[in-house]
Amino acid sequence: MTLRIAEIFGPTIQGEGALIGEPTVFIRAGGCDYRCSWCDSLHAVDSSYRHDWMVMTPEAIWQEVRRLSGGRPLTISISGGNPAIQDFAPVIAMGKAEGYRFACETQGSIARPWFSALDTLVLSPKPPSSGESVDWAGFGRCLTAAEACPNVMMKIVIFDDEDYLWARAVAGKFPDLPLYLQPGNPEVDPDRPVDLQACTDRLLWLIEKVTGDGWFAPRVLPQLHVLVWGNKRGV
Amino acid sequence: MTLRIAEIFGPTIQGEGALIGEPTVFIRAGGCDYRCSWCDSLHAVDSSYRHDWMVMTPEAIWQEVRRLSGGRPLTISISGGNPAIQDFAPVIAMGKAEGYRFACETQGSIARPWFSALDTLVLSPKPPSSGESVDWAGFGRCLTAAEACPNVMMKIVIFDDEDYLWARAVAGKFPDLPLYLQPGNPEVDPDRPVDLQACTDRLLWLIEKVTGDGWFAPRVLPQLHVLVWGNKRGV
Repeated sequence: MTLRIAEIFGPTIQGEGALIGEPTVFIRAGGCDYRCSWCDSLHAVDSSYRHDWMVMTPEAIWQEVRRLSGGRPLTISISGGNPAIQDFAPVIAMGKAEGYRFACETQGSIARPWFSALDTLVLSPKPPSSGESVDWAGFGRCLTAAEACPNVMMKIVIFDDEDYLWARAVAGKFPDLPLYLQPGNPEVDPDRPVDLQACTDRLLWLIEKVTGDGWFAPRVLPQLHVLVWGNKRGV
Repeated sequence: MTLRIAEIFGPTIQGEGALIGEPTVFIRAGGCDYRCSWCDSLHAVDSSYRHDWMVMTPEAIWQEVRRLSGGRPLTISISGGNPAIQDFAPVIAMGKAEGYRFACETQGSIARPWFSALDTLVLSPKPPSSGESVDWAGFGRCLTAAEACPNVMMKIVIFDDEDYLWARAVAGKFPDLPLYLQPGNPEVDPDRPVDLQACTDRLLWLIEKVTGDGWFAPRVLPQLHVLVWGNKRGV
């Protein structure tokens, strides 16, 4: 059995969502069933990058994570692309046997039995600006598959007012899921520096919308890695 | 009974630590038993500002929080100065009766019975660069007082290598307390804009120290409010 892997990197910190700031090694899976208009990880999504993806056994993936982390347990984030396309159960089993913790980030379109083995599952339904539309039945199957996972939450990226209103409606459907909002990042060219002031201005816009509306359920967070490294890869 | 209050403001988001990104109203208490060299809240610490502090009953404090939040429950952060100098038990009781949640930020020098009524207690022992020294017996009394508080954690500000090594030693003393590190902010003049690049460079420095050393216990976070608003007050 092999998996398609776009990159394995770290340790760095998790830049967004519930585990923001947490030392993490990232396993970025290659391949996605979505093609969001503003995707910031096309190198793990667009099949034109397919020749750059590694074909690795679970054992080889695990050896690389162990090498990067010096054999010291930490949090591993399985992201993508959509990692739920593939079977990460063997990698998770190897890591948990050595005391590592696992988080997974997925849009919630495909459910996997291994969601139940995760410490954290972040479901990121994509708002209208993505150009995708959410299959809520599939999303529900993800929640069911994750019933044994102690930390399941939603993260929604907000580019505009329409996304924001959509997020409020989604939050109404799932009032018991912790919710994290982050402003969308339209600057995704890895070769161009990011405008820090524009980044923090977008965060301010979203903070003011949420607090101005008296909507106190979501946490509002930036992408720290973009503030620190721009769109550089491998950090 | 009255309390000395430097400011009550919000709703905004919590800018640092475990509750980063959480919509919050802040009650900033006036007065402190410390005088850290790099204090970013001197207007709540230095007694020369004392004439600016409000003298408020718990009822008046509660009415102001309720007004700011539109009567919608959210997280209230009691900070300072050192809020543990004063008795916030009546304010907490009023807020909890209406479904509000309470966090408190204190250096951990003075223990209070009302710590047990908090949802979150953040203890911030001050590193060598502060010019203060920690009374660990007092810190231990704070931990004991907070036994009924479900979320107790440490936050340590790091200005330099000495602070960093100190934080590692402190973490060794309290391995079960979740730990948050944040780079120190030497730019504390509310009338001068903050250098965003310098802020993110300090965060990068701390991330690289932690990950480079394979120290995976702490989360590393910036002060989001400084990135968004600089040192402006009341946000």
